[in-house]
Order: sequence, then structure tokens, then C-alpha cells
Amino acid sequence: MFDKILIANRGEVALRVMRACKELGVKTVAVYSTEDKDTYPVRYADEAVCIGPAQSTKSYLVIPNIIEAAKNTGAQAVHPGYGFLAENADFARACVENGLVFIGPAAACIESMGDKSSARETMKGCGVPTVPGSDGCIDTVEEAKAFADEVGYPVLIKATAGGGGKGMREVHDPADLEAQYKAARTEAGAAFGNDGVYLEKLVLRPRHVEIQVLADDFGNRVALCERDCSVQRRHQKLIEEAPSPALTEELRRAMGIAAVKALRATDYRSAGTVEFLLDSDGKFYFMEMNTRVQVEHPVTEEIVGVDIIKEQLRIASGEPMSCADRAPFSPNGHAIEFRINAEDPDCGFRPCPGTITRFDPPAGPGVRVESYVRTGSKISPYYDSLVAKVIVRGQDREEALARGRRALDEFVIEGIKTTIPFHRRVLDNPVFCAGEACTDFIETQMGDVL
Amino acid sequence: MFDKILIANRGEVALRVMRACKELGVKTVAVYSTEDKDTYPVRYADEAVCIGPAQSTKSYLVIPNIIEAAKNTGAQAVHPGYGFLAENADFARACVENGLVFIGPAAACIESMGDKSSARETMKGCGVPTVPGSDGCIDTVEEAKAFADEVGYPVLIKATAGGGGKGMREVHDPADLEAQYKAARTEAGAAFGNDGVYLEKLVLRPRHVEIQVLADDFGNRVALCERDCSVQRRHQKLIEEAPSPALTEELRRAMGIAAVKALRATDYRSAGTVEFLLDSDGKFYFMEMNTRVQVEHPVTEEIVGVDIIKEQLRIASGEPMSCADRAPFSPNGHAIEFRINAEDPDCGFRPCPGTITRFDPPAGPGVRVESYVRTGSKISPYYDSLVAKVIVRGQDREEALARGRRALDEFVIEGIKTTIPFHRRVLDNPVFCAGEACTDFIETQMGDVL
Repeated sequence: MFDKILIANRGEVALRVMRACKELGVKTVAVYSTEDKDTYPVRYADEAVCIGPAQSTKSYLVIPNIIEAAKNTGAQAVHPGYGFLAENADFARACVENGLVFIGPAAACIESMGDKSSARETMKGCGVPTVPGSDGCIDTVEEAKAFADEVGYPVLIKATAGGGGKGMREVHDPADLEAQYKAARTEAGAAFGNDGVYLEKLVLRPRHVEIQVLADDFGNRVALCERDCSVQRRHQKLIEEAPSPALTEELRRAMGIAAVKALRATDYRSAGTVEFLLDSDGKFYFMEMNTRVQVEHPVTEEIVGVDIIKEQLRIASGEPMSCADRAPFSPNGHAIEFRINAEDPDCGFRPCPGTITRFDPPAGPGVRVESYVRTGSKISPYYDSLVAKVIVRGQDREEALARGRRALDEFVIEGIKTTIPFHRRVLDNPVFCAGEACTDFIETQMGDVL
Repeated sequence: MFDKILIANRGEVALRVMRACKELGVKTVAVYSTEDKDTYPVRYADEAVCIGPAQSTKSYLVIPNIIEAAKNTGAQAVHPGYGFLAENADFARACVENGLVFIGPAAACIESMGDKSSARETMKGCGVPTVPGSDGCIDTVEEAKAFADEVGYPVLIKATAGGGGKGMREVHDPADLEAQYKAARTEAGAAFGNDGVYLEKLVLRPRHVEIQVLADDFGNRVALCERDCSVQRRHQKLIEEAPSPALTEELRRAMGIAAVKALRATDYRSAGTVEFLLDSDGKFYFMEMNTRVQVEHPVTEEIVGVDIIKEQLRIASGEPMSCADRAPFSPNGHAIEFRINAEDPDCGFRPCPGTITRFDPPAGPGVRVESYVRTGSKISPYYDSLVAKVIVRGQDREEALARGRRALDEFVIEGIKTTIPFHRRVLDNPVFCAGEACTDFIETQMGDVL
């Protein structure tokens, strides 16, 4: 195991990684922008290095500054968290070139999965089902029309360098294709510096179901069950749960086997997530692979009893994962995560940075809180608005739902607006409570908040 | 299920019961002494009734006041928590006579298990092993000498009405027997108004291993694995864990079967605990049965995924327990509880009541905190000194230990002294870490704190 690592991130995920390090006896180095100087993770780390001003393009995204901080502090490895440089192959490569272990998969693997159309080709090649889609980028409106006519409307236009819903357009009517195609390319170019787009058949009312995977250098490749992340607003997940209310044990095994095929095909190492669309007939299609730990990893940890961050550290340090002999995994209980953001759900989810004048998180049985704030903490306007994650666990989904209501009712955050009231309303929604939410849930059921 | 219940207790256990009620949709009535008026559980309840001044003999122990509060608020049932009236058969009887459901076993059962020598006889009668001991009370020094000569020294003198170590004396040397016998009777008389004592063979270097049980009105009787509570100071538990590091699966089954025999023999209903001494040869002996929920119940909840308080509520309301079909239970992971008391471990565990000027509990994966305090709360000198329970869970004991260290290091309580530093030292002790602590652990390993 490493003696010391650097955490190239901030906020709750930085603290999450540091806690895992502390339990493994690994010393930690925090990096921070001037804006984050007084945050709890910076105090929690054994050492902390300032890497620039508030704007992340001048601090958390500056590869040389982070590499230098790691070398100056004698860190042996770098954990990227999620977001920022977590899926940046150049960063992974820079770590390795500077004698640092990148805690994640190889740079080439990040690169090949980061290119969405090449990832699709890899999956098709190894027998993982994909949504009928164009072979690679579609460079003209005519090609796009021909493809859409072939597979039938609706279709989805996606940026090949994309993520987070940027450069993504649905086309239901052939008359809209040209305008949407052009808009998607423009948006993709602006967001990613790459205006390549591809087309897919749009799966109607799908669920977003993803498989958490782990692979090590000893040939162990395991699927840690699934997460259902269908409750999304503009392709941003808000609530995630494990297991999915829509999966049978048979379907879970089938999706797990597909995810392990993806690991084998990419010679994957570390934790990752294979995301699928699941249609109402139980057919699933590869969407993309995330080559990092995800915000929602705790719901999996709760139902399989595996610490995913620690497994990343073990794998990166050349040890085997600790849980290989427990595969195949079945869910034990049910867990749901609510992302509490500093946003006003009654005002279009407008960000609400500011100072938290009182922070009393919920506690008691089956309640886990992941947060980096305390009473007096500031939520900065410079970064994403995640304040806390509330993860509840119950012996079944019904208990997890009841616990979620109880925990959210207990949670006191004063001084800023948060999405707690939104989540509380979701927990009273009969479609969500019945386990029937698809990706159109917010649009169709919670439309008043949009 | 009930519509509304009254919780005849205070502090963390009152809050614990209220949280379970909230998740089941049951309204709650708190009772409080004037001293506890501003505590969090009183605010948390749907209704609250003052039942007297600070001294518990004038409030929490006054049966008519509590019965009246329940009747006046329309509560259908009463949960006694632990301590106070939880094992008082008169209280259970008064509830029933006033048309209230007592959430626990029948008064007759509390009575028969409350009398330690009659409980022993019941267990012998149904084939549960007991420590060789006198048949009933020993009324003269001569009888005591004869018994001790027969079973051999060392012997243990115990108060028949006893609990918490009061009226209990070890005798290693025959020359001490007379003095210790008289002292035990005097102490028992003063503490319990009953100076009856009995003698037992003293099991040397035993572990305290107890089985959590549940029984309902539908004939379901289950053992929810064991807890190891060997880390005790003057017979008061400080650290509890599940499973016991000393048990094999075979021994677990054997102890579970013995505990279920005890349920059958006493026609038991509700949650309870059958306490055993386990010697180094793997032989176990019945010690006593607690006819209530215990402080340490969360470690069991963590490894079996059952909410014991909710099961009590289900059983008392006439429903079957929800977990019967999961028996026989095996431990899933490992959990350890640390009782954080307002006491100074560097000064003989002297109570340290006062105002908490800062309370930042630990969080993150595998950490559960049960507490009724927040920043600004007062710890009253009138009641027991329990401030919080930290319960950690890991996939194995090693992970739970590491998580315990991490969680205790994170825990900030300012304004009062607590036992956190004591627990932290136990977590660095090689005997405890090796899972080899017996009931003499504190005396032999942590002697500097006594």
C-alpha cells in the first residue's frame, strides 16, 4: 500500500478519499484553490498545497501545478476523484511520466472510453449490446437524415467528446433534424473543442441502469450489482438507488456479464461504471463507460459492503481487490442516495451559494451522510453546487423510502436554499414510490419544478 | 400498527424509538422532566408532556404520571426504552390495566427473568447450561462456605435482585468469604431493598457473549446472532461488537438454539437478550436474560440488517416480525459500538456534566452515530452520562477497527470531557485488536485508567 497520496480534487469526494486513506494508514496531501483554503477537507489532510486561484481552470484543472505539488510532498500516487481531471487521459499520462501512480485505469483506456463513438465500437466488437447507432461520426445533414430514416424516429444526436448532456439533442420530427443537428455540433464545439456528433436510435422511456465494476492486475473482474439513476434533470442525476426496482436476478446477472466483457475488452483496471439504457421489455443497451468513481458509488457500497475507494487504492498499489472471492454479488438490502445541492428547486434549480449558518445532518440507523461542510462553511459560486449526499439503507425498498423521508425531514441546513424540499416531494410521488420512474420522471411527474 | 405511542424515556434511546416510529408512520409522545425540557428528543416528538422535576424518582420513575400522560394524549402503547422502568413488571402491568400496550414482554415474564435465581432455575429446567451455582438464595455464611467448598474457589456472590454490578463480590480466598458475603448482602439491601444473594462458581477470564432474540405472537422465535461485550468496567459495558471474535459458526448456532429454548420456556414475546459467559474452552453458561432492548442493540442491526425497535413495535401491535423468513441469521460484516460518556477517563471516569460548546460527529462510510445532543446541548448531572454511541461497520473486523479509529479521531466534542480518548487507546491495544479481550481486559490491559 502507498505511504502517501495526493487527492487532486475538492469538496465531498476529496474528504471521501481521505477517509479511506486514513483507514488504510495512507498519509494524504490535499490541493486547494485560494477559495477553498478554509474548507474541512484541507484541514483533514495531513498536508495541503495551494495550487492557484478560485477558477478551476487556474487551479484544479492545471496539470503541472498538481504534478508539482505531488512531487514536492513526496506523494507516490494521485487520486483524481470525479469531475475535474478524473477522465483526462493527459493527466493520467502526466502522472505516470512523473513517476506517480494514477489511481484509475490506464491513460489509453480513459482515452478510448472517453471517445463515445469509439467506445460504442469497442462494445459492439465484444458482444455488449448497443443502441442502434451510426458507425462513427456523422459529418453531414444528409448522412444524419439517411440514418434517421433507416432506424426510424425518434433519434438522439450526441457529441462524441460529450458528457453531462452537452451537445445532446432529441429529434422526434424529421422536420427538426437539420436545425438540431447544427445546434448540437455548435454546442459540442463550444463545450469540448470537438464538434463531432453521432446519432442513435432514441430508446423511449428508458431507465438509466449502470453496473459498478472493479478489475485488478490479478485477473479479477467483478460486477458489484447495479444502480438505477433514472431520476435526472437535464441528464444530471439527482437520486440514485441500488438495486434497481426494475431488475430481476437473471437480468442483473446478464448485465453484470456484459459489464465484465467490457472490462476484458478494454483491459480495464480500477473501479469503473458501465452505463446502460434499459427499455421496458428488459432489453439493455450500452450507453457509455465512466472510467472513474462516481458521485453515486455509496449506494453500491451500502448493498454489497465493499469500500470502492479502498479497492481503487489497493488495485492501484498492485494488491488484489479484497472482495473477489465474494463474487457473484447479490444486493443485500436497498439503498437510495439524494444529492443535496445548493440550488433553489422552486426557482429552476438556480444555484444558491452562500454561508451555511446552521448544518445539522440527519443520523440514526441506516443513514449515511457524505459532506464536506459544517456550520459556518461557505458554498462557493466557483464550483458545482453539491453540499451533501444523504444515503439511506433499509432491509427493503419500502424501509429505505421511509428512512429517506425521516432523514430528509431531520436535515437542517440554514443560510442557503437547497434541493431537500424537492427530494422530499419526490418521496411522496406515487410513481417514484412504486419504483416506476424512467428517465422522463422529472419532466412528466415533477414538471412544476422545471 | 399503532397510530400513536408514548416513549417513557429520555436521551438517545428516546430519539432512537421516535425515529423508528417516524419511519413506520406512528405518532410519538415524549415525556420529560423539567430538566430535559429543551432536549432534542422532546422537540422531535409530535407531542410532549412534562411529568415532573429533574430527579428521576420524581419523573421518569413515577408510573402514575406516565400512565396519565399516555391516557391524556390518546397514546395506544408505551415504549419503555432501556433503564428507568424498562424492566419493572409493575409498570408493564399498570400499562395493561390502563388499556395501554406495553411494548415488551408480559409482566410475569419480566418478573420471572428479573429474579436472577428463579431465571437460572427456569434455564436449567429447559436445558440451557448455567454456571454451577447454589439452588436459590443462600441465607447463612455457613451455607455459603459449604457451597464454595463443593464447587471450589473462586466463587461469585450475586444479589438476586441485582444488576449493574451492585451487590456482586468475587471471592478467591476462603478467608475472605464471610466478610464479602456480609458486604454483598448489605449492598444488595441498600441498592434493591432485597438483600437476598446466591453463589456461583466464578468462570475465570470469560467473555461476555449475548444473543439478541425476537419472538412474536405467531410462533416465530429467532436469534439475531451474538454480541461480544467483554470490554466492561465494573460490570458496565463500554465497547460491544458483533459478531464475537471468539465464535465459530457452530458455536453461534448452539448458543442461538439455547437462546431460543429460553424464549420457548418463558413464552417470551418482543425483543430480548440472553446473556452468557463463554469460557476459553468454548463452553457457555447462562448469566441472565434482559427483557428489553439494550444499549448495544445497534451492532446487531448493522450485521443482520434488521431494525430491532421496529420489530418490537410490529410484535407489540400484533403483527408478525418482518424478518422471520431470514432465519437462521449469519453475520454480514462486523460492527463495533463505542459508548461515549461524559466522563473523564483520566480521572477514574468521574462524570463531567456541562454544556457542549461544539459537537461535530463523525460521518462517512460505515459510521453510525446515535445521539440526542447537538452544539449547545447540556449534559445533565441527574441522569446517566451517555452522550453518544459511535457504531462502525466494516466488511471484516480489521476494517471496523480502522474505521473506529478514523471515526473517533474525527469526533469533536468541546465543553465537556468524554471517554473518546479512552476508546482511542483501546483501539491501539494489541489484545483488543487481536480479538482476545476477556472481561478482565480493562483491569489487566488498561489498568492505568482505573
